[in-house]
This record gives sequence, structure tokens and C-alpha cells, in this order.
Amino acid sequence: MTYETLDYQVEDGVLTLTLNRPDRMNAFNGQMRRDLIAAFDAADADDAVRVVIMTGAGRAFCAGADLEKGGDTFNRHKRQDQPEGDDLRDGGGTVSLRIYECTKPVIVAFNGAAVGVGVTMSLPADIRMASTNAKFGFVFARRGITMEACSSWFLPRLVGPMQAAEWVYTGRVFSAEEALKGGLLRSVHEPDELLPAARELAREIADNTSAMSAALNRQLLWRMMAADHPMEAHIVDSRAIAFMGESADAKEGVSSFLEKRAPQFKLRPSTDKPAFFPWWEERKFR
Amino acid sequence: MTYETLDYQVEDGVLTLTLNRPDRMNAFNGQMRRDLIAAFDAADADDAVRVVIMTGAGRAFCAGADLEKGGDTFNRHKRQDQPEGDDLRDGGGTVSLRIYECTKPVIVAFNGAAVGVGVTMSLPADIRMASTNAKFGFVFARRGITMEACSSWFLPRLVGPMQAAEWVYTGRVFSAEEALKGGLLRSVHEPDELLPAARELAREIADNTSAMSAALNRQLLWRMMAADHPMEAHIVDSRAIAFMGESADAKEGVSSFLEKRAPQFKLRPSTDKPAFFPWWEERKFR
Amino acid sequence: MTYETLDYQVEDGVLTLTLNRPDRMNAFNGQMRRDLIAAFDAADADDAVRVVIMTGAGRAFCAGADLEKGGDTFNRHKRQDQPEGDDLRDGGGTVSLRIYECTKPVIVAFNGAAVGVGVTMSLPADIRMASTNAKFGFVFARRGITMEACSSWFLPRLVGPMQAAEWVYTGRVFSAEEALKGGLLRSVHEPDELLPAARELAREIADNTSAMSAALNRQLLWRMMAADHPMEAHIVDSRAIAFMGESADAKEGVSSFLEKRAPQFKLRPSTDKPAFFPWWEERKFR
Repeated sequence: MTYETLDYQVEDGVLTLTLNRPDRMNAFNGQMRRDLIAAFDAADADDAVRVVIMTGAGRAFCAGADLEKGGDTFNRHKRQDQPEGDDLRDGGGTVSLRIYECTKPVIVAFNGAAVGVGVTMSLPADIRMASTNAKFGFVFARRGITMEACSSWFLPRLVGPMQAAEWVYTGRVFSAEEALKGGLLRSVHEPDELLPAARELAREIADNTSAMSAALNRQLLWRMMAADHPMEAHIVDSRAIAFMGESADAKEGVSSFLEKRAPQFKLRPSTDKPAFFPWWEERKFR
Repeated sequence: MTYETLDYQVEDGVLTLTLNRPDRMNAFNGQMRRDLIAAFDAADADDAVRVVIMTGAGRAFCAGADLEKGGDTFNRHKRQDQPEGDDLRDGGGTVSLRIYECTKPVIVAFNGAAVGVGVTMSLPADIRMASTNAKFGFVFARRGITMEACSSWFLPRLVGPMQAAEWVYTGRVFSAEEALKGGLLRSVHEPDELLPAARELAREIADNTSAMSAALNRQLLWRMMAADHPMEAHIVDSRAIAFMGESADAKEGVSSFLEKRAPQFKLRPSTDKPAFFPWWEERKFR
Repeated sequence: MTYETLDYQVEDGVLTLTLNRPDRMNAFNGQMRRDLIAAFDAADADDAVRVVIMTGAGRAFCAGADLEKGGDTFNRHKRQDQPEGDDLRDGGGTVSLRIYECTKPVIVAFNGAAVGVGVTMSLPADIRMASTNAKFGFVFARRGITMEACSSWFLPRLVGPMQAAEWVYTGRVFSAEEALKGGLLRSVHEPDELLPAARELAREIADNTSAMSAALNRQLLWRMMAADHPMEAHIVDSRAIAFMGESADAKEGVSSFLEKRAPQFKLRPSTDKPAFFPWWEERKFR
């Protein structure tokens, strides 16, 4: 499968997903929206993908919404790239929700500027790393629009309400250093060391852990951080520990640890998911 | 309008709201409670106010509840300053809830001590800055009472549960430096540089952003950080982007950016709010 | 009362609860599970206990689940140590939920390695301190199982979703320094200064604050950090301030402050809890 606006490369368990409109600073449009959702569908269905790395081709990560229509850019009556079936639906949010539901760890490697939807769609990824060249902006209030792509849900959880407020209210463009200090990023790297560092982290996951553990853990983390009582986690934990505990992966995980050797996990998320997964009913847009 | 316990000054889009009982270290009483709620009502209704800065007159920001009644201070049967209509209602909480509902960014500039309700009522503000002279205390357990003003909701979200626990359990008074390190403050300044720094941040907001974007973004941030699923944000984002996207502010925001000039936003929150705002039903005290 | 796997010592208001299977690195088993729940029951019922300190005997804090059964360790069909009455229930989670419900501040002093359930059962404690010798690991994905003990609820709230994801997805064992930087720990100490530092903090609480204030504050913090609206806090705050405000503890707390002397608080949580406590209905496992 190929994508008009993305490069999709799987190598040794790691999918590198590259936003690929370098002549437009990888600006986000309707085609990229559709391509991203399709690419995450493909990644989730493919057991050969253990970890996803998102990055950008050329100078930018993603300069935000493509402004080629000028002042009409955000006017839904003058666009053609609406999410199918509902012209009132925020396009960036459909990508954020798709990444939120992913069953593989997602690392973003910001090679350059990430502005507007370019940064907000990265918030449902798990880990964000950047080049010293990167810069960021939650610029919505300067463009006369509002924060989108579910960023009001993700951003205060990631960086705290005070830092979220300052970035969103001022709409300022800020450096990778400020992003690191504010908690948006895990680490900042020299430009030519960014992708190697992201791949090293991806390898640490892919080489040492069970793919099924990862799939269950990712949804446990994202779902339970917003549950109202730890009993909600205990109910799912108990089923997950019971299921995995009698699986071949637990046997191999403990045996390989006691034998001081690398594990060879066998469960395949595409076919071996437990009956209780998903334990939630996915929310509908209304 | 004038206030018995506050000074209310609007200049060039910025309201400076000064707690003004310097002979009592700006201690909180029933009159200040009523004045603060009225002042935020006025600020919300006035399109000339883009940003609110709260500070204190004299040496302190707010020394907490006025203890002039000694051991009977917190005994509701021996006070006269109860919130109207319900003698079981925590007064500080009514101020916190009013600030939470504000549609303008709120910056607190702690010029001096902020203790008890003096600090807890600042938690629903967006950004907290302090002078090196400031000190803080969640002293409730030392006074034989409990944390109030909704601080059990706000504080762990702002500084994390572990830092919140240490400050609340010990009831210790601590320095601006400890407050900064613990995440309560955005920044600490020399005393005579505090208000200029707060005003500079207020200007960055007022000069560059749409007032309507700010009003929508503030409520998105505070409401969605406690929503149980990002779909809740997506539902509101979609309406907000649709509304703002076809507004004069989006046209001006994008055009001014492309033309590299300062924007002139037109929408007035007092009269131009979208039909879907508020999208929530405000909670009642019961 | 004595415990097979714990040492339980109360001195001057502070319970030191020591995991005590040093020959097995204090590995967690069914007996320790039952002992921990019983010890927290005892601590809650005893007004002589103001603060709980948890630590470990010997070299480790807790090496995680006892792996003496090798690859069958997590297979519920081959174990005998199930929580009573439900063989589908995660044992670590029953301990986490018991600590969550505790009415005394809980400090963990990690004297050495804390891996798997050894670290996840510490997350519902309030404050975590460690020796430079300590190390940590959310190793579940390396053992072919999943995160447990309600850690998907607690960990992202404590350290943020990004740091939680990296530790859980990699399953790596990491140093006290990384744990401090990542927000899991309050402080790191030389080995022989760890318990003195934990006791100093416990003393600061026990010597200066009301036990009843502590009991109410602890549940306010843990319950309201997951409530969906600050009004939920205001409703309980109002009752708590009304109850404590007319109590002997508030009178003593304010009087002792005004008289610049140490307070002598009288309320006993075992017998003097207000009628509205608990204000929640505890969740059932289902």
C-alpha cells in the first residue's frame, strides 16, 4: 500500500511513518487526514509492526493546516476536505482519536516546526522527541480559531494546566528547549541524532517485550488515566493478569528472565486478543 | 463601580484587581468574597477586559481568613459572613468556582504571603507568578480545619498528587523557590519586576489573540482536563472550529499572518458567543 | 498482633511497616498480601498511628512477585494464593485499593530494589523517598504480563502519561536518579539517611497537625483529583469546613497559632468522624 502524503516503511518491527509534503512544509490537508487514519489502521493490523515512529520529510514536521485558501482556510463552507458524512467534524480530531486507539507504542520525532494541528495531533502519541531545530506553536488564538484535535483533553494532562494555558492563550511559537522544560518533550537531540535516538528507544521496546503486553498496557494507560476510581483499573487488571498469566508469553517472560536470556514472545495481537478486549464501548461522535 | 475590599483598574485591555485591606494583610472576609465575585462578573461582561491580573496591596497577597474572631473564626454559628441562602457553604469555594467559570485569562501576581484561602482561591487562575518575597501555606491541618475552596480538585492537577500531599499534610509555610520547584508557580521575580512581568504576559495575550478564541479556549481547557474521554473534546472542538472558522476573526487571523501584520480581531464575547456556548450545564450546590 | 511477612512497630505516632522476607528480597506472595491489608486495617483503627512509613528489611524493598514457581508464577490455575472468593482478582490491586482508602498519610522509604508489584503497590502511598541504592522497574511487558495493582490509574497521574508510557513500554530497570527526575520520587538520600529523613517528614505531620484534618484531607485529595467538576469538591469542602470549624480542633488550631505555641489536638478519627464520612460509596469488584 502507498499513500499520497505519507511514506510508510517497516523495518525490523519498527514502522517509520513520514509526513511527506516537503514542498508545503508537510502542511495538513484532507488527503493527509485520510492517509494517516489508513496508515494507523494498517499498523494495527500488522503484527510485524511493534512500534510506530512518526516524523517529517524535509525541513518541517508539519506546519499546520495548509493555508493555501488564505482567510477561507477554516471556513467549512469553502472547503472540500471534510471528514466524510459530517461537515461539522474537526479533521485533526479524527486523527487524534485514531492515534489514541492505536495498540502499538507511538513515538514522534519532531525534525522541525510543528505548529497548530502539526503539534496537536502528536499529543495522543506516547513519547515526543525533537531536534534542536524544532519549534512549536499552539497558535489557534492568533489565527482567530480555537484549540482542536482534542488538545484540550490531552495537553493539560501532559504538561499541566498552567503550562497548557500559557501556550494556548499566547499562541506563541516556542523553541524545543522551552518545549522540553515545559514537559511536552521527552528529550532534545542534535538534528542527525534524532532518528537514531527514536529508533534506539523503539528497539528497547521491540526487542524485550511482549507485543500483546504492549497492546493491553497502551489501552490501560490511556483509558485509566481518565477513569474516576482505581477500581476501574483493578477490574481490567484482574482480567488482563489472568489472561496473560496463563499464556505462553508469561511462561516465556519469566523463564527467559530466570535463564538470563532474551525472550521469544509468541502472542500475536492481530489474532490472540483476549475476549474481554476491548473492555470499553468506543464513543460515538454526536 | 467601586469595591470596599478591592481596587479595580482597567487599562489598555488589562484589569488589575488588587486585594485592598493592607492593614489586615488583605485577609479574606465575607465582604471580600462578595466583592471578588462581583468583580469577576464585571470583568466577564466588559469586552474592554482581555486579561485579569490579581495582586495584593501592601506587604501580603492574602494572609488567609481574617482571624479577628480567634478560635471561633471557622465556627459558622458565630459568624455573620455566610454565603447567602446557605450557611453550610464554604465561602472560598464560591470564589474558586467563580474564577473557574471566567471567560478571560487570569494571572495571579503574588506580591507577598498567600496562606490558606489566600493561595487556594488562586488555583483556578491560569498562571501564577510571584515575588521573591512571597510565601505560601496550605495550613489547614495546622488550624484544625480542612483544605477548602475546591483545592482538593485543583491542587493535585496543578502540582501532582505527591507534592499536593506534602504541602497539605504538613501544613508548612514555604518559600517562592519551593513553590516554583513544586510546580505551583510559573516564575519568580524580584519584587519590583513582578507586576511588569505579569503585564508583559498579559500584553502578549491581549495584543495578538482573538478575545472570542480566548473565551472558548479557557473553558475548553478547564472542562476537558476532567472529561473522561477525548471524544468529549472532539464534540465541542468540532462546533468551535466550525463557528470560528467562518467568522471574521479566522479570516483576519489567517490574513494578518500571511500579510505579516498585527491582527485586528472584531468578535466581542459579550454579544457574539456561539449558540452552543455554554455546552455544559453548570453544577448546582446541593 | 504479629505478621508473618511484616514487622509492625509504632513509636511516638509513627508506624514503621517493614516488608520482612529478606532472604527472598521481600518478594510479594499471598501471605504478604493478606498481612499488608491487615496491617493497614490495624493502622486505620489505631489513633496512636498518625503516619505510616513503609520500608523493607535487608537489601531490597520488594523484588516483585515471588518467582519460585518459575514460568507458572502468574498462572492462576497453578497457584494457591488467590484473593479469597474470586480467583480472577489481581492480588496487588487489593493491596493498592486498601492503601488508597487509608486515613493516615503514607510515606514509602525505598531502601533498595522495587520491581513489579514492589513499585506498583507503592503508588497509592502519598510520598515516595529512596536510597541511592534503590532501583525500579515496571517490568511487566518483559515478563509477558500486564501492568497491575491499579498502576494504570495511579502512574500517569503521578508522573504524567509520557513518562509512564516509557517506563511501562520498555519495562526497563532504572536508577533512583531517573525515578527522581521522572517524578516518581520526592527525594533521594544516602542509605543511612533515608529512614531519618522519612521520620523527620512524619514528625512534621504528627507534631503539628490535627489527625482528623489529616484523615479528611487524605480522602479529599485522592477522591477529588478524579472528580469531573470542582463542584464535587465544594460540596464536600463545605460540610468538612462546617464540621471542623465548630470542633475543638479548629478552636485549638487558631488559638495555638495566635498564641504562638504548639497545638494539642483532641479529635480521634476512630470515634469522632463526621456523619457525612465516607461521602462516597466504595466501588465493588465485579
